[in-house]
Amino acid sequence: MAHIIANKDKILMRIKKIKGQLSGIEKAIEDEKDCFKVLQQISASRGAIQSLMNELLNDHIKEHLGNHVSEEQRAQEIENITNLLKTYLK
Amino acid sequence: MAHIIANKDKILMRIKKIKGQLSGIEKAIEDEKDCFKVLQQISASRGAIQSLMNELLNDHIKEHLGNHVSEEQRAQEIENITNLLKTYLK
Amino acid sequence: MAHIIANKDKILMRIKKIKGQLSGIEKAIEDEKDCFKVLQQISASRGAIQSLMNELLNDHIKEHLGNHVSEEQRAQEIENITNLLKTYLK
Amino acid sequence: MAHIIANKDKILMRIKKIKGQLSGIEKAIEDEKDCFKVLQQISASRGAIQSLMNELLNDHIKEHLGNHVSEEQRAQEIENITNLLKTYLK
Repeated sequence: MAHIIANKDKILMRIKKIKGQLSGIEKAIEDEKDCFKVLQQISASRGAIQSLMNELLNDHIKEHLGNHVSEEQRAQEIENITNLLKTYLK
Repeated sequence: MAHIIANKDKILMRIKKIKGQLSGIEKAIEDEKDCFKVLQQISASRGAIQSLMNELLNDHIKEHLGNHVSEEQRAQEIENITNLLKTYLK
Repeated sequence: MAHIIANKDKILMRIKKIKGQLSGIEKAIEDEKDCFKVLQQISASRGAIQSLMNELLNDHIKEHLGNHVSEEQRAQEIENITNLLKTYLK
Repeated sequence: MAHIIANKDKILMRIKKIKGQLSGIEKAIEDEKDCFKVLQQISASRGAIQSLMNELLNDHIKEHLGNHVSEEQRAQEIENITNLLKTYLK
């Protein structure tokens, strides 16, 4: 089973939490809170999404490039992952 | 007026859009879409939040460290911004 | 043949160039040049080394996780690359 | 006195160390060492230069935007630092 489906509930929970952080940022802006407080919250939500991305990327490499994958699939996944890294890492 | 308040509507729109991206990711996971598609969407939402953060950070330096700020305030803002950068840049 | 060996001359040239940038930074510091000029040069050399790393990482995934690799080797390489990414991406 | 000049010896030592890491990478490539070992070393040298950059950036903000700076200088430094961040953070 695909790694994201296998960890579905845990991943959905993390995304829900990040959406909650963003709602908190919206409220802080609407309430005209201190700019620095807003920056801190945006930095935290970027940290949360980046750390989710990094974990899923590692899971993805482990699962979709592993030995149980067909040769055709692996060639396609390597193409996909290297294209994604070009955008993600720049 | 503070830079975030001055650009309130535009910033709120961008945060709303990122929340929309995250809702799309939730739906893709619930529908058990291809893992790679999910990764691409997470990478895009991370790009969007990071680019918002980088812009607000620059606006913040321009406004909160500028010449119109009191000495006491500036000392505090420099303390704040360098502490934030330690977390954000690592 | 390993991807780094296949591109040996080109990669060595890039590393030599980065060492040259660092020597320029040493000289700028010794000559007590403007701090901002030094920062710009350090930022450029970090850009150069990061872009080399990103390219080699992609080449590495293409070559060392590809279909021609033995199952035992692939398992080891996946272990290696995901460990490296944990440090590199954080 | 400028922050880089004040810490001249320590900064020069770190740059020298990074150049040493790069020489080690050159040697590893010439000796046709395992690609993964080369990647690890490049990742480490990128970490070293990035952490130097982040520290100097923070020192720079503290010193060159601080209260003892003239208004004209501060306006120029804010222009400089925000331009640099646009490249460095993207």
